[in-house]
Amino acid sequence: MLNRIDHVGIAVASLEAAIERYRDAFGLEVVAIATNTEQGVREAMLALGSGATTPASYVQLLEPLSDDTPVGRFLARRGEGLHHVGYAVDNISDELQTLATQGIELIDQRPRHGSMGASIAFLHPRGLHGVLTELVQPSS
Amino acid sequence: MLNRIDHVGIAVASLEAAIERYRDAFGLEVVAIATNTEQGVREAMLALGSGATTPASYVQLLEPLSDDTPVGRFLARRGEGLHHVGYAVDNISDELQTLATQGIELIDQRPRHGSMGASIAFLHPRGLHGVLTELVQPSS
Repeated sequence: MLNRIDHVGIAVASLEAAIERYRDAFGLEVVAIATNTEQGVREAMLALGSGATTPASYVQLLEPLSDDTPVGRFLARRGEGLHHVGYAVDNISDELQTLATQGIELIDQRPRHGSMGASIAFLHPRGLHGVLTELVQPSS
Repeated sequence: MLNRIDHVGIAVASLEAAIERYRDAFGLEVVAIATNTEQGVREAMLALGSGATTPASYVQLLEPLSDDTPVGRFLARRGEGLHHVGYAVDNISDELQTLATQGIELIDQRPRHGSMGASIAFLHPRGLHGVLTELVQPSS
């Protein structure tokens, strides 16, 4: 069961320029900036809403650490733009097991560490009409 | 002010195949199927969450009515995949005015009719790091 859209991931050439644009144009709050060497990105999480909305959803800006990373190759091939969508789930391990039995192709067989303490796993775009899809179990 | 992610729009070659996949894999409920001749698409809205989540967010599947439409050209150029993201706002007219004064390039100067009675407007991807962005004021 997908509870809601947790975030959209946007591949950008310059994290600083993108943060400035999204923060200033939309009034979003930067809640985290981090380097994820496993995924080869420097990323920023910008929260939507005034805080009255619980739980929040996010714009995730992703700058590749080098050309030879998934996001680096995405930028070279397609330019800046929407990279993936992340859906919030209650129990990511159960969800992965269910999806596998339905023949959905998993990139991550087991959850790994994502932004802000979440457990995440990616599903392959091949089985989902071209959409790189992430499951997110937020930190409790 | 963007309140939350309202939906992601996914360009697909076959609406029926995509509905079946997203409904069955993720247990999403199809809440609307409609033809939007103005946008040149046949579309389906699939709601996330069990109904306990208020307000809902959606996966929007978009099949072009012909090759010579924005979504048709997107498919020819990039294949199936993420096409745009839609953010919920309280007052779309106010939001458009604010964005214009900040130099954000608008595709729609004024709101028009979107899915399920919403008022919508698109912002140009040029100013937003390659992301076609939609504002959505849900029907009240």
